[in-house]
Amino acid sequence: MKITPVKGTADYLPAEVLVRDYLQSTILETYRSCGFERITTPIIEDIENLDKSEGGENLNLIFKIMKRGEKLEEAASSGNLKELADMGLRYDLTLPLTRYYANNRAKLPSPFKVIQIDKVYRAERPQKGRMREFVQCDIDIIGSDSYTAEVELIGTTAKALLNIGFDNFNIRINDRRLLKAIIMSAGFAEDDCDSVCISLDKLDKIDVAGVREELVEKGFDAANTDKLMANIAIKPFTLETAASICGELDCISNLRRIMELANTASHGKYSVIYDMTLVRGQGYYTGTVFEISSPEFRGAIGGGGRYDNLIGKFLGESIPAVGFSIGFERIAGILLDKNYKLPGKKPRMALIYDEETFPAALGHADELRHEYDVTLFEAPKKLGKLFARLEESGYDCCMVEGKDEIKHLGEKV
Amino acid sequence: MKITPVKGTADYLPAEVLVRDYLQSTILETYRSCGFERITTPIIEDIENLDKSEGGENLNLIFKIMKRGEKLEEAASSGNLKELADMGLRYDLTLPLTRYYANNRAKLPSPFKVIQIDKVYRAERPQKGRMREFVQCDIDIIGSDSYTAEVELIGTTAKALLNIGFDNFNIRINDRRLLKAIIMSAGFAEDDCDSVCISLDKLDKIDVAGVREELVEKGFDAANTDKLMANIAIKPFTLETAASICGELDCISNLRRIMELANTASHGKYSVIYDMTLVRGQGYYTGTVFEISSPEFRGAIGGGGRYDNLIGKFLGESIPAVGFSIGFERIAGILLDKNYKLPGKKPRMALIYDEETFPAALGHADELRHEYDVTLFEAPKKLGKLFARLEESGYDCCMVEGKDEIKHLGEKV
Repeated sequence: MKITPVKGTADYLPAEVLVRDYLQSTILETYRSCGFERITTPIIEDIENLDKSEGGENLNLIFKIMKRGEKLEEAASSGNLKELADMGLRYDLTLPLTRYYANNRAKLPSPFKVIQIDKVYRAERPQKGRMREFVQCDIDIIGSDSYTAEVELIGTTAKALLNIGFDNFNIRINDRRLLKAIIMSAGFAEDDCDSVCISLDKLDKIDVAGVREELVEKGFDAANTDKLMANIAIKPFTLETAASICGELDCISNLRRIMELANTASHGKYSVIYDMTLVRGQGYYTGTVFEISSPEFRGAIGGGGRYDNLIGKFLGESIPAVGFSIGFERIAGILLDKNYKLPGKKPRMALIYDEETFPAALGHADELRHEYDVTLFEAPKKLGKLFARLEESGYDCCMVEGKDEIKHLGEKV
Repeated sequence: MKITPVKGTADYLPAEVLVRDYLQSTILETYRSCGFERITTPIIEDIENLDKSEGGENLNLIFKIMKRGEKLEEAASSGNLKELADMGLRYDLTLPLTRYYANNRAKLPSPFKVIQIDKVYRAERPQKGRMREFVQCDIDIIGSDSYTAEVELIGTTAKALLNIGFDNFNIRINDRRLLKAIIMSAGFAEDDCDSVCISLDKLDKIDVAGVREELVEKGFDAANTDKLMANIAIKPFTLETAASICGELDCISNLRRIMELANTASHGKYSVIYDMTLVRGQGYYTGTVFEISSPEFRGAIGGGGRYDNLIGKFLGESIPAVGFSIGFERIAGILLDKNYKLPGKKPRMALIYDEETFPAALGHADELRHEYDVTLFEAPKKLGKLFARLEESGYDCCMVEGKDEIKHLGEKV
């Protein structure tokens, strides 16, 4: 039998779970204090819903659950491998949210400000930092097409990060429509914008020269490409720069309002910055997109955007929606690596008993629990060895039942 | 596309999630204050580990995850359906705990007092009260063969129930070895005990006469059966009754000590009662078994026991262990049906803004959040209608930005 967890998943040790639980509950409480409401959906979804969803690459990473009993035998005899599964594990929280909203809409407020903190599954090729089972923390506002939704999402997400002690970050923002306008102003056709965006998304990896080369290799006109690259090279590229290229578009004044309000609300603790090169991978974004980045780490630690056509899919109508997701595993990993100190935790005490003092220790422990998290330990032959082990395991102090004195076990990490 | 969740699973509404989260975190904090430590394991386990585990009937209820890519094609061409899956969803938290302990033992204290609060999956035929995805709350003590472990588990579990406001319950206790001794004292062979126990487990459904009939139908000697039934009919059947039938066995004095200490610790809030007919289904129990029952409800709302041969399985050695599980879905359902009042929650306020007052409302909301959970709402044309909807959605009060007065929305459930 195999004692390790399956590839790409983890057994978490008690000290890790303590930090992960604290982070999740602090994020959840922050979201709730800002008027968002948590829902939960099953980890399992209908396979057709998953297969037909707009998950892009993720559709190739679905863990599929086999049919059972007679239905499995029927499916197997059909010879069609696609028939074998009837359900799958969700690869994100957006498809379940879409289905949930359609299923429960009559019971939900509008706009619906919703929290999802839950596990998702992707059959990724396992590699460092890529898990097959991981937690996402999402907030979404469904049913509002106003810029106020973006302002609230940015403020609430930033507050959650600050509350867990993650304070060195900025939020970059862009609008798909503006990026598209800039690309088209260089002479590209509307239909080419998606392909150009996919290349632009690699700017931080292959730089302007690399992106230029890729675009030309893709067969795009060299003059148009050069014109686009020249615009991208402008530093700083502000909303005024964008306006001078494309004119005063609605999406520019929209971004301006969001940034102004979000930056006021930040009280200087973080900045919301326009980044004309920000793309975000998901194909379903229709307007604003945003991403959290930190000067201390490569890559995004959160992101989101507006996806006005997705939620209404099950209902056959258009419902505006915008969401912001925190990369929980990334942040938990960073904080655990930094020897994160859990705030406000009760000290841990070991109360040591022997056969005779166990009954008294039982009652005594309950009294001490007002002030300490108390674990009962049977006295071993050598107390000294136990003290050393307790200190190693993160206990703050210990006490031998029947003696009044509390022994402190030195400073804990 | 299907908008309902897959069979046997549920979409939880915000008000339900609020209660479920509160219950889970209160149970978790109680467990932690008593010196237990939480671990988490993946929802997915290796299919061989699951198939070879001691899950009894549950082995027929495993959701299996299909292999992917080439491996799936190879498996399909083998024609053997068993080859198609490489993983499965866990059906309980005991098998993962067993594997986890073997994998991480060097990093864990001994005895290890462990918490698991997590989802498990069973492909049950869907019916009222039986979910295919549900939460279990388990505590286990691994590495202690002392009766003190049972005392701690009972006290900690009872405290968790009291802390969530579930206070009308008792705990019945038995010992597999004692029940076996009573059965054998009626003339049954040791090998027949399991089969007799399976019938005895139905006492609450088919009564003494029904069990007698079933035993005789199974081919057991009628005289032995009558002798056993006569013993079972003794009321009250105390530990003294047991001792008079089987002699002063070690397991009787063990039960006596557990009950004495557990009943002292209960301060009269619940009783721990010897029930000579208590069986508990799982085949892996080796000693004490216990079950929580409430006069208000049929069936068990929690249970557990000692399983000294299971944990060591992966390690090839014998490691004593005992666990206690709370039936979370059962309890959450009972409390939600009772219109459970969430204690200590901040009141919910709706802060209403218009286009002009949004920037001020944004800052104002943050101030109010020290005292309230504040949701921002854009003012609709008819304020009165909004007030009615807010009250319906569980808001306690609301305020229009720019006006100082807080409007209370009537008593909430």
